[in-house]
Amino acid sequence: MPHDIRILTEAELRAAVGLDLSTVDVVERAFAALAGGEVVMPPVLSMDLPAANGEVDVKTAYIPGFDGFAIKVSPGFFDNPKLGLPSLNGLMILFSATTGLVQALFLDNGYLTDIRTAAAGAVAARHLAPSRVQTAGVIGTGVQARLQMQAAHLVRPFERLLVWGRDGAKAQTCAEDLAALMGIEVLPVSDPAHLVAQSQLVVTTTPARTPVLRAEWLHPGLHITAMGSDQHGKNEIDPKALAAADLYVADRVSQTEIMGELRSAHEAGLWQGGIPAELGQVITGDAPGRRSDDDITIADLTGTGAQDTAIASHVFQMLQDSPSGTVISA
Amino acid sequence: MPHDIRILTEAELRAAVGLDLSTVDVVERAFAALAGGEVVMPPVLSMDLPAANGEVDVKTAYIPGFDGFAIKVSPGFFDNPKLGLPSLNGLMILFSATTGLVQALFLDNGYLTDIRTAAAGAVAARHLAPSRVQTAGVIGTGVQARLQMQAAHLVRPFERLLVWGRDGAKAQTCAEDLAALMGIEVLPVSDPAHLVAQSQLVVTTTPARTPVLRAEWLHPGLHITAMGSDQHGKNEIDPKALAAADLYVADRVSQTEIMGELRSAHEAGLWQGGIPAELGQVITGDAPGRRSDDDITIADLTGTGAQDTAIASHVFQMLQDSPSGTVISA
Repeated sequence: MPHDIRILTEAELRAAVGLDLSTVDVVERAFAALAGGEVVMPPVLSMDLPAANGEVDVKTAYIPGFDGFAIKVSPGFFDNPKLGLPSLNGLMILFSATTGLVQALFLDNGYLTDIRTAAAGAVAARHLAPSRVQTAGVIGTGVQARLQMQAAHLVRPFERLLVWGRDGAKAQTCAEDLAALMGIEVLPVSDPAHLVAQSQLVVTTTPARTPVLRAEWLHPGLHITAMGSDQHGKNEIDPKALAAADLYVADRVSQTEIMGELRSAHEAGLWQGGIPAELGQVITGDAPGRRSDDDITIADLTGTGAQDTAIASHVFQMLQDSPSGTVISA
Repeated sequence: MPHDIRILTEAELRAAVGLDLSTVDVVERAFAALAGGEVVMPPVLSMDLPAANGEVDVKTAYIPGFDGFAIKVSPGFFDNPKLGLPSLNGLMILFSATTGLVQALFLDNGYLTDIRTAAAGAVAARHLAPSRVQTAGVIGTGVQARLQMQAAHLVRPFERLLVWGRDGAKAQTCAEDLAALMGIEVLPVSDPAHLVAQSQLVVTTTPARTPVLRAEWLHPGLHITAMGSDQHGKNEIDPKALAAADLYVADRVSQTEIMGELRSAHEAGLWQGGIPAELGQVITGDAPGRRSDDDITIADLTGTGAQDTAIASHVFQMLQDSPSGTVISA
């Protein structure tokens, strides 16, 4: 018996959904559900394709209370730029959580991942950053540098933003873009130590394989979100910083210990903190968060299938009111 | 930069592709590639959803020499029949093996899986059944019972077919259907021992959890393909039969040892044969196949992502000549 399947392209998705508090809230709800233990989230299916200089990841999560669950396929083919194509692509498929029937195909080329990743950064900032953030800093100058700062500003409306990247020209452009988008003072800086010293909230958004943020730069009243590491081998934060912080929080321990900052701290023999708290537990109150505005906190975000289910469900919900895209009966 | 994505529904796929020798050949090519060791085929991502009485499997494989690779999502929601819906659904996504871009979405509700599963049965029969099969037998009366016999007949044009199922009325209907489809003599039988005794080729197509084919029924000049077991807990063939046969061949050892007949033989302590051969190795000549028409051979098919990549690539190839479906630029 054929049923309707809604199909949206990247352009249609960009027109339909953006980064706002409703997006942050639905991703927060997914994190809270993760703490409840009823979420079914298998390990990421990861396929390395050395012959094609590519990789493919598949993420999914079933969250009780959500009407659907998403399966996300994220190919990365790193010779694509030579062909004038982006390296990253992919789509999300939303299934009914009751019948398993395909409900929607979001041909987003990674756009929804960008949004849900930035929303997770805002959730971390909401629950872990000092209550008052005057200056925020971002390390990295790409898409996530821009989105993370816009997302964080939704929950901590800072007045000043500092940008650092290895390439000064890109930092300059990123700062100009963000100033125009956010209407606040945004300054490129030449020294990341200076950026951290000035900031109460720092987000690292790089694919670094050696740390870009040193432990000796930590200072009271700082929250750091590291969101760049999503693979074994990546490392943005000096492992000593994890040990030195008052609180380290993982998005999902089973992921951060193999592909997040926690992995590096483990491998350096610097982690003595036992099983760390997860962001969802901080949200629900099952684990303590920041105790005072002077605490130093670190959130380690590797990206979870729960976020994909959250954003895909959110988009599908929004479409009930303003239909767009193509409907196919299959 | 948007690119074209071809989308086909189940009805369009049924009209475009069926079970013929070209389908068998492309699946054979995938098996041969598996033997070459260059295929990248991660373990099945399997998500149990007890709260929904459901499960979801994700399979994929990258095969050198194929222009694309498929990712298949197969949800099974077992309360669906109460709602008038089939339990099994799902889709295949075909990606470019060069760029990772989505090329096609096949909203097949499992149809292509049915076809590629039957084609694998034909590949096993082609390489392992006695050269002359006068009588074939099928155990089970469902969709695969029908498709497996039609597929096997493409490579071993037997004159007589016997059908056994636990439900005699269903066996009668299945026999009538197959007689009409195939134009040969098809008889329902009341005793599976009789079916095996009369046949040179037997295919088991059941979800049995206790064996439906006993070791004492084996006889010289018999080939058995067991294709029903695809999960830990299923078991169609008496474990003693695997030890007693002259040759046991797996579609993929890493799968049959955890969810095929080999698992049951291992757990019964009855497997002393070391690492068995795979079907692909028999095809390429890297492992010996049947030595004489008197040998007793068993093929254990659990279903591989390589078959999915093969069938999806085959369909996409066919569509180059006769366009159908919907094209979306995304």
